[in-house]
Amino acid sequence: MATPMENLKHFLLALCAATAAGLVSIIFVFRWVLYFKEGLAWDGGLAEFNWHPVLIVTGFIFLQGIAIIVYRLPWTWQCSKLMMKFIHAGLNLLAFVFAVIAMVAVFDFHNAANIPNMYSLHSWLGLTAVILYGLQLVLGVGMYLIPVTPASWRAAFMPLHVYSGLLLFTSVIAVALMGITEKLIFGLKDPKYKDSPPEAIFVNVLGVLLVLFGGLILWIATRTSWKRPSDQILHSLHTNGGGEDNSKVASALSQLPDGSDAYGAGDARKRSNKSDEQAN
Amino acid sequence: MATPMENLKHFLLALCAATAAGLVSIIFVFRWVLYFKEGLAWDGGLAEFNWHPVLIVTGFIFLQGIAIIVYRLPWTWQCSKLMMKFIHAGLNLLAFVFAVIAMVAVFDFHNAANIPNMYSLHSWLGLTAVILYGLQLVLGVGMYLIPVTPASWRAAFMPLHVYSGLLLFTSVIAVALMGITEKLIFGLKDPKYKDSPPEAIFVNVLGVLLVLFGGLILWIATRTSWKRPSDQILHSLHTNGGGEDNSKVASALSQLPDGSDAYGAGDARKRSNKSDEQAN
Repeated sequence: MATPMENLKHFLLALCAATAAGLVSIIFVFRWVLYFKEGLAWDGGLAEFNWHPVLIVTGFIFLQGIAIIVYRLPWTWQCSKLMMKFIHAGLNLLAFVFAVIAMVAVFDFHNAANIPNMYSLHSWLGLTAVILYGLQLVLGVGMYLIPVTPASWRAAFMPLHVYSGLLLFTSVIAVALMGITEKLIFGLKDPKYKDSPPEAIFVNVLGVLLVLFGGLILWIATRTSWKRPSDQILHSLHTNGGGEDNSKVASALSQLPDGSDAYGAGDARKRSNKSDEQAN
Repeated sequence: MATPMENLKHFLLALCAATAAGLVSIIFVFRWVLYFKEGLAWDGGLAEFNWHPVLIVTGFIFLQGIAIIVYRLPWTWQCSKLMMKFIHAGLNLLAFVFAVIAMVAVFDFHNAANIPNMYSLHSWLGLTAVILYGLQLVLGVGMYLIPVTPASWRAAFMPLHVYSGLLLFTSVIAVALMGITEKLIFGLKDPKYKDSPPEAIFVNVLGVLLVLFGGLILWIATRTSWKRPSDQILHSLHTNGGGEDNSKVASALSQLPDGSDAYGAGDARKRSNKSDEQAN
């Protein structure tokens, strides 16, 4: 078993690695469109298309990834859960806006160039991901930010919220990898993709970086010992759902994300506070 | 909270949906290569290439998915954990063999047609996935099937084993989607992919089915209440690691996959037995 101090160290290491992979991905996607491709513009041409990968990597992948792990940052554990929920929802909303603009850029480009829309598996899965992400956002806000939802519902739907969130994040990266594949095949003519020109290698590396970022975010999100202390969740649920049967809430909470026991997680809180003290 | 009976019903529903998505995917991939493409042969040509999608979908995706959830099947809970481990490892080994033959088919085809190997992001991530899957297999067998590994190690590495397994499974599906994208672009000439001929629509649907299969397997694998009763794991660990400090094992077990409490899961066992009785 890792000591609290080691646990914090491992978390910070994973966080730094994820942030680095994410930021280098952003640098790579900008260098791709600015150095290898036609740059950025909003003119119906290829430079407008280029907003698509830029907005997907910076918004739909990086911002979404950060939104997912924002509760895990130990220095936010003193903030109210409600404020963290607003930051989580706000980052996801921003990511959604980026994704929608990214799609508009492609439709604009396709229409101007008389290329059919929505024919590829990339477009099918990409549009589905954006629609389901919007639905997840609306349901998430309705369920966890508007105080009318019964606490027992909040607890009961939390595993689905977490699962959908992680699956959508993973799917978005998979769809991005398909998009990279399409663009390298269509965009490289002489030399072709199979001749491995510098752009092909460079963008392949971008794809590998996106997988690394995704893998690290999923690792951080699914470590129980790195969670925001769950007694605060319990407290917030009890507070918001004063009229609810608390034993039902507590019982439902024991089925919370990853099935972690809410009371057991209270121990994690104690451990974590200790590690904060040691770190300061 | 779902009653034990409802819980079992939900599990069976998810299992049927996953199996159906997987089997229909297999039918689709066979129809793709036998009806739309050149059929199957081992001749260095396109019919040899076609073994690649067939073996990936049947082996590296379907068999791997079943291997992941094999512990969740309630009718196996009376079997010894060791036997289930052998089935889990055996299915994964079979999936690995399928994946290796699938790769050989592509290399053969490329070499005969003078197409470069390993230039695409699909090939980079695919080869990496096969290598890491082989490593996971070797480490898994060494760690959990060979009785010399200390019980505390087994428990400590289990979260990594589970995470790696699920990430590899997800990555393999993502890589398959990239492969479908490549093959539809390269394989469809007149009409092209963008003209949406029947083959394009058909294979896009195959891609959607693979995502559904993956999503359902991940859902089944990550539901705590559908796990094989963990007191059996505890028992097996205690039995295998008789010389170990049991309190350490128990403590490590509380950090088991999804952080489920081993003793709490004992309750799940009782619930599950009940549901078995009710189901029979």
